Amino acid sequence: MSYSTNMRFRLPALALTLEIIIIILFGIFVRYDTHEQSDPQQNSTAAHSQFLSLYPLFQDVHVMIFVGFGFLMTFLKRYGFSSVGINMLIAALGLQWGILMQGFWHLHHGKIEVDILKMINADFSTATVLISFGAVLGKTSPVQMLIMAVIEIAIFACNEHLAGMLGASDIGASMTIHTFGAYFGLAAAVVLYRPSLKNGHENEGSVYHSDLFAMIGTLFLWMFWPSFNSAIADHGMNQQMAIINTYFSLAASVLTAYAISSFVEHKGKLDMVHIQNATLAGGVAVGTCADMNIGPFGAMIIGFTAGIISTLGFKFLTPLLATKLRIQDTCGVHNLHGLPGILGGLAGIVSAAVGAKNGCTPAMQAASLAATLGISISGGALTGFILKLPFWGQPPDQNCYDDSIYWEVPLEEPEQENQNQNEHGKIKVEA
Amino acid sequence: MSYSTNMRFRLPALALTLEIIIIILFGIFVRYDTHEQSDPQQNSTAAHSQFLSLYPLFQDVHVMIFVGFGFLMTFLKRYGFSSVGINMLIAALGLQWGILMQGFWHLHHGKIEVDILKMINADFSTATVLISFGAVLGKTSPVQMLIMAVIEIAIFACNEHLAGMLGASDIGASMTIHTFGAYFGLAAAVVLYRPSLKNGHENEGSVYHSDLFAMIGTLFLWMFWPSFNSAIADHGMNQQMAIINTYFSLAASVLTAYAISSFVEHKGKLDMVHIQNATLAGGVAVGTCADMNIGPFGAMIIGFTAGIISTLGFKFLTPLLATKLRIQDTCGVHNLHGLPGILGGLAGIVSAAVGAKNGCTPAMQAASLAATLGISISGGALTGFILKLPFWGQPPDQNCYDDSIYWEVPLEEPEQENQNQNEHGKIKVEA
Amino acid sequence: MSYSTNMRFRLPALALTLEIIIIILFGIFVRYDTHEQSDPQQNSTAAHSQFLSLYPLFQDVHVMIFVGFGFLMTFLKRYGFSSVGINMLIAALGLQWGILMQGFWHLHHGKIEVDILKMINADFSTATVLISFGAVLGKTSPVQMLIMAVIEIAIFACNEHLAGMLGASDIGASMTIHTFGAYFGLAAAVVLYRPSLKNGHENEGSVYHSDLFAMIGTLFLWMFWPSFNSAIADHGMNQQMAIINTYFSLAASVLTAYAISSFVEHKGKLDMVHIQNATLAGGVAVGTCADMNIGPFGAMIIGFTAGIISTLGFKFLTPLLATKLRIQDTCGVHNLHGLPGILGGLAGIVSAAVGAKNGCTPAMQAASLAATLGISISGGALTGFILKLPFWGQPPDQNCYDDSIYWEVPLEEPEQENQNQNEHGKIKVEA
Repeated sequence: MSYSTNMRFRLPALALTLEIIIIILFGIFVRYDTHEQSDPQQNSTAAHSQFLSLYPLFQDVHVMIFVGFGFLMTFLKRYGFSSVGINMLIAALGLQWGILMQGFWHLHHGKIEVDILKMINADFSTATVLISFGAVLGKTSPVQMLIMAVIEIAIFACNEHLAGMLGASDIGASMTIHTFGAYFGLAAAVVLYRPSLKNGHENEGSVYHSDLFAMIGTLFLWMFWPSFNSAIADHGMNQQMAIINTYFSLAASVLTAYAISSFVEHKGKLDMVHIQNATLAGGVAVGTCADMNIGPFGAMIIGFTAGIISTLGFKFLTPLLATKLRIQDTCGVHNLHGLPGILGGLAGIVSAAVGAKNGCTPAMQAASLAATLGISISGGALTGFILKLPFWGQPPDQNCYDDSIYWEVPLEEPEQENQNQNEHGKIKVEA
Repeated sequence: MSYSTNMRFRLPALALTLEIIIIILFGIFVRYDTHEQSDPQQNSTAAHSQFLSLYPLFQDVHVMIFVGFGFLMTFLKRYGFSSVGINMLIAALGLQWGILMQGFWHLHHGKIEVDILKMINADFSTATVLISFGAVLGKTSPVQMLIMAVIEIAIFACNEHLAGMLGASDIGASMTIHTFGAYFGLAAAVVLYRPSLKNGHENEGSVYHSDLFAMIGTLFLWMFWPSFNSAIADHGMNQQMAIINTYFSLAASVLTAYAISSFVEHKGKLDMVHIQNATLAGGVAVGTCADMNIGPFGAMIIGFTAGIISTLGFKFLTPLLATKLRIQDTCGVHNLHGLPGILGGLAGIVSAAVGAKNGCTPAMQAASLAATLGISISGGALTGFILKLPFWGQPPDQNCYDDSIYWEVPLEEPEQENQNQNEHGKIKVEA
Repeated sequence: MSYSTNMRFRLPALALTLEIIIIILFGIFVRYDTHEQSDPQQNSTAAHSQFLSLYPLFQDVHVMIFVGFGFLMTFLKRYGFSSVGINMLIAALGLQWGILMQGFWHLHHGKIEVDILKMINADFSTATVLISFGAVLGKTSPVQMLIMAVIEIAIFACNEHLAGMLGASDIGASMTIHTFGAYFGLAAAVVLYRPSLKNGHENEGSVYHSDLFAMIGTLFLWMFWPSFNSAIADHGMNQQMAIINTYFSLAASVLTAYAISSFVEHKGKLDMVHIQNATLAGGVAVGTCADMNIGPFGAMIIGFTAGIISTLGFKFLTPLLATKLRIQDTCGVHNLHGLPGILGGLAGIVSAAVGAKNGCTPAMQAASLAATLGISISGGALTGFILKLPFWGQPPDQNCYDDSIYWEVPLEEPEQENQNQNEHGKIKVEA
C-alpha cells in the first residue's frame, strides 16, 4: 500500500464539508422544543423539571461516550492520542449527525425539536460507532472513521426505528447499540483484514501506564452504566428498576470476570484486558431487560453469566476469530459488546416470555435481535468495502497502532536524553 | 513464607462461591422498593422524584468509591493495577454484601427493599473496607481482601446499628466509616506486621506519573465529598448545610495542608503525599457534624485544624507508628481517616453540647465514638489473625508492593527495547 | 535572579494568614441562606428542590475547576505536580475569597447568605485566576499565585458587578470570565517577561503520557461546559437553551479544530496542543449568548468559527505575540479564552441587535466588553508589577517549568536503575 497517509487535504475537506452540511440541515430542520405541543396537563415548569431531572443522567452518558470509550481504548502503548482523540472527533460529529438521522424519523410539523431525550439519544447513536471503532482500532485513518460514522449512524437510526415498529423493548440497547455496533465493526474488520498482521504487531500490546489510563475509561463506563440503561426509561418504577438492575448486574459481572480471568491463566494471574472489559459485560447484557421486573436476583444472574462469557471470549474466542475467520478485533468488542449483547437479547426474549414487562412478546424481541444482526453485519460489510477504497489514507501495515502517522508525537524522556540534537522533541514519520 | 501465591484455584473458588451465596440470598430477601408501604401522603411520583433527586448524589459517592479510592492508591510505582483493580473487586463484592448486612437490620415484612438510600448506604459500607485496604496495601493477596471485606462489612453494619441505637448523629460518618475503617485496618496491620520491611521496601515509593494518577483519586474524592456527607441527610436545610459545611471545610483544609507541608520540610518543598491526602482531611473531620448548624465559620475551623493534624501525622506520627508500634500503614490511613475521624467525633460531641442539632447529646456522641474505636480495633485484630493463616496466598516480603505477583504486567518501553527477544511484553514472576 | 526560592516561611505564612483572615470574615459576614426572606410564594421545600436540582450543575462546574483546569495544564513534561497542585491551591483559596468579594456586593441585612448559586459563582470566580495562571504557568511561585488570586478575584467581582450595572447579559461569561482572565494573565505575563526564555526552554514541551493526562482535563471541561454556561441561567427555557446551544457549539468547534489543525501542518498531522484547547473554544465563544434564542443553528456557527480562530491563533499568533509583544503565554490562553471570549462578546452584541434576548441592547453588551478589556488589562499589569517584586520566590530562568523547585519529585524508573545509590528516589534541587 504505497498511497499517501497525509491527511492535510482529505481530513480538513471532509470534516469541514460535513460540518457545513450539518449546520445547513440544522438551520432548516432543528429547533428547540418549546413544549408548545406537549401534553396539555403538563405545563412549562413541569417540562423544565423533567429536563433538569434527566440532565444528570445525560451527563453520565456524555462522560461514558467521551471519557469512557475514549480512555478504554488507550490501553495500546503507542495509540493513546488516536484512541482518545479520534473517539472525540467521531463522537462530536456523531451526536450532531445522530440528531438528524434519528430526528428525521420523528419530525414534528416538519421540524426536529431538541430536548433532553433527543440529546441522550444523539449520544447513544455515537456509541455504536465507538464500539465499531474498537474493532478496527489502529488500522484505520481519521477520514475512514468519519465516513464510518456517517454511514453507521444512518443505518443505526433505521434499525432502531425498525425495532420500535416491531414493538421490541430494548431500553438499555443490548441489541440496538451493543450487538449492532459490535457486529457492524466486526463485519467491517473482516473486509479490512490485513494478512501481514495475522501474527500480531509489535505495537499491539500495552505498557504499564497505558493500562492505568484504560482503567479510567473502564471505571467511568462501569459507574455510569446505570444511567445509560435508565436514561430514556419511563418515569417511575421502570426507571428505578433500570438503575437498580444495572447496578447489581455490573457488580456480579465483576466477581465472575475476576474469577475466570485468574482461572484461565495457569499461574492464576489476573489479566488487565479482562478486567478492563469483562467487568462491563453485566451492563451490556442487562440492557434489554433493565427496566423489566426481573428482580435484583434476575439481574445478578445475567451479570454473573455475562462476566464468565466475556472473559472466556477474550481467552479462547478472539484468537480463533483472528485465525479462522480473519477477524482482527483490536479491542475485543465481540467479547464486551457482541456476546453480552446477544445474551442481553436472549434474556429479553426469556423475560418477555415470563411477562416481565407488559406488552412485550418473545417474538417481537427475537425479531428485533435477528433484524439487528442481519442489518449490522450487512451494513458493516458494505462499509468495509467503502473503507477499503485506496484513497482514504489508511496506514500501511507496519505503521498500524502507531499515533505518529497521524499525530505530532513528542519524544519520550529517556530517548530524548540520547538525542539532544532534537530540542523540540517531535518524532516525525514520513507520510 | 514459602507458600504458593498462585491464585488460580483460591481466587476463583472464593469469588464464585461468595457471588453464588449472595445471589441466593438476594433471591430470598431482596426486592425493589415499590413504595407500597410508604407515607400515604407521598405518592409514587413523589417517591420517584426523590429517587431521581438523590441519584446524582449517589453517583458522586459511586465515583468516590471506584475512582476516588481506587486511583488515590495508585501512587505506588509498581502497584497501580492492584490499587485500582482490587479496589474495584472489593467494592463490587462489598456493595452487594452491604445491601444484605445492612438490610438484615431493617427488614420489611421479611424483605430488604432496595431504594436509592439503600444503594448509597451499600456504597458507604464498602468505604470502610477500602480505607482498611489502604493500611495493608501491597502486603496482602486478593483472596485476603475478599475475606476482609466479608468480615469487616458485617461488623461495620453491627456497629452502625449500635450507633443508631445509641442515638448518635454521624451523617458524614466521621466515626462509623472513617474512624472505623482506619482503626480496623491498623489493627489488622499490627497483626500482619512484617519485620523485614521495617526499613522500607524499594517499591514503596512513587514515580512521577503514579503521583499524577493518584491526584485523579484525590480530586474526585475532594470534589464529591459534599455529596458523601449529605447524601443521606434529611431533606431540607440539614442536607443543604451538609453540602455547604463540607465545601468550606475542605477548602480550609487545602490551605493548611499546603502550608504545613511546605513548613515541615527544611527546603520548603511540597510533598505529594501530603497534598494527595491531607487536603481531604477537612471532609473527614466535618462529617459527624456536617448537617448541624455549626455555620460555615465552624466548618472552616474544623477543616483548618484537620489539614494541620493530618499533615503533621504524615510527617511525624507515621514513622513513629512504624518503628514503635509495629504498624506499617502503607497509605497513611491513620492520618487521613483515623486522626481526622476522631477529630470529627470530638467536634460532634462539642457541637451536640452547644445544641447544634436537636436531639443530639454529647454523651450519645461520645458513647458512639468509644464503641466505634473498641469494635473496630478488636474486629480488625481478629481479622488480622484470620488473614495471617498461611494459605491465602499472601506475597513474600520481597514481592510486596509489586503487581507482577498477581497480575500479568507488560514490560515498560525502554526495557523492552533492550529485550527484543520478548515480543509479547510480559514479565512473569514465578509464583 | 539570585533570590531564594525556598517557600518554607513565605508560603505557610501567607497561606495561614489568608485562611485566618477569611475565617474571621466568614464568622462576621457569612451565614446559610435559610430562605426566610425568599419569595413568599416559594416555600422551603421548593427552595430545597431548587438547591438539589442545581447541585448537579454545580458539581459539573466544580469538576471543571479542579479536574478540568488542573489536568489541562499537565501537558508540560515536568510540571504536572504544579499544574494540578497549584491549581487546587488557587481554587480552594479562590472559592472562599470569591464568596466574600462577590458577596460584599450583595449583602442581605449585612450578611452574605450562602446558597447554591453563591457556591456556583464562587467557583466561577476562581476560573478567572486559573485562566490567568495558564498564561504565566511555569514561571511563577505558589506565593505569587496566591497573591494573584487575591487581587484578581477582587477586581473580577468589581468588573462583574459593573457588567451587571451596565445591564449586559453574559450568562456563560465569555466576557467577564474568559476575556477577563485571559487578558489579565497576558498583561501580567508582559510585565513578567523573561528575555532569556525567548527561544523557548527545554522543559516547555510535553511527553507522551503528559499529553494524555491533559486530555483528561480537556474532556471534563468539554463535557461539562453546558453546565458552566447554564448553571446560573433563569429557570426554564433560558436554561435549556443554554445547555442545548453549548452542546452544539462545542461539537461544531471540535470538527473545525481537527480540520484546521491538520491543515496548517504540511504533513497533515494533528497537533495535541490544538486538540486539547481549540476543541473547547466553542464553549467559550457561545457563553455570552448561550441563553439567548439564537437557535442550535446560530450556536453551531459560533462554535464553527471559534474552532477555526483558536487553532489559527495557536499556529500563527502565539509565536508572534512572543516575539513581537513579549507575551510568553505558556498555555496559549489567548487562543482558548482571549480570542474566543472576544468572539463571544461580539456574538452577544449581534444577538442583542437582532433581539435574541429581551432587554439586551448592543450598546450595553459593547460597553461591558470594553470595560472588561480595560479593567482586565490594567488590573493584570498592576498585578504583574506586584509579582515582579523580588521576594516572592519566583524561579530562576533555568528552573522554569520544573516541578522540582517547589516539590519533592521522585526519580523516574529508568534513571533510578542507573543510580541505585539513591534508594528513596528523590531529586533535590538546591534552592
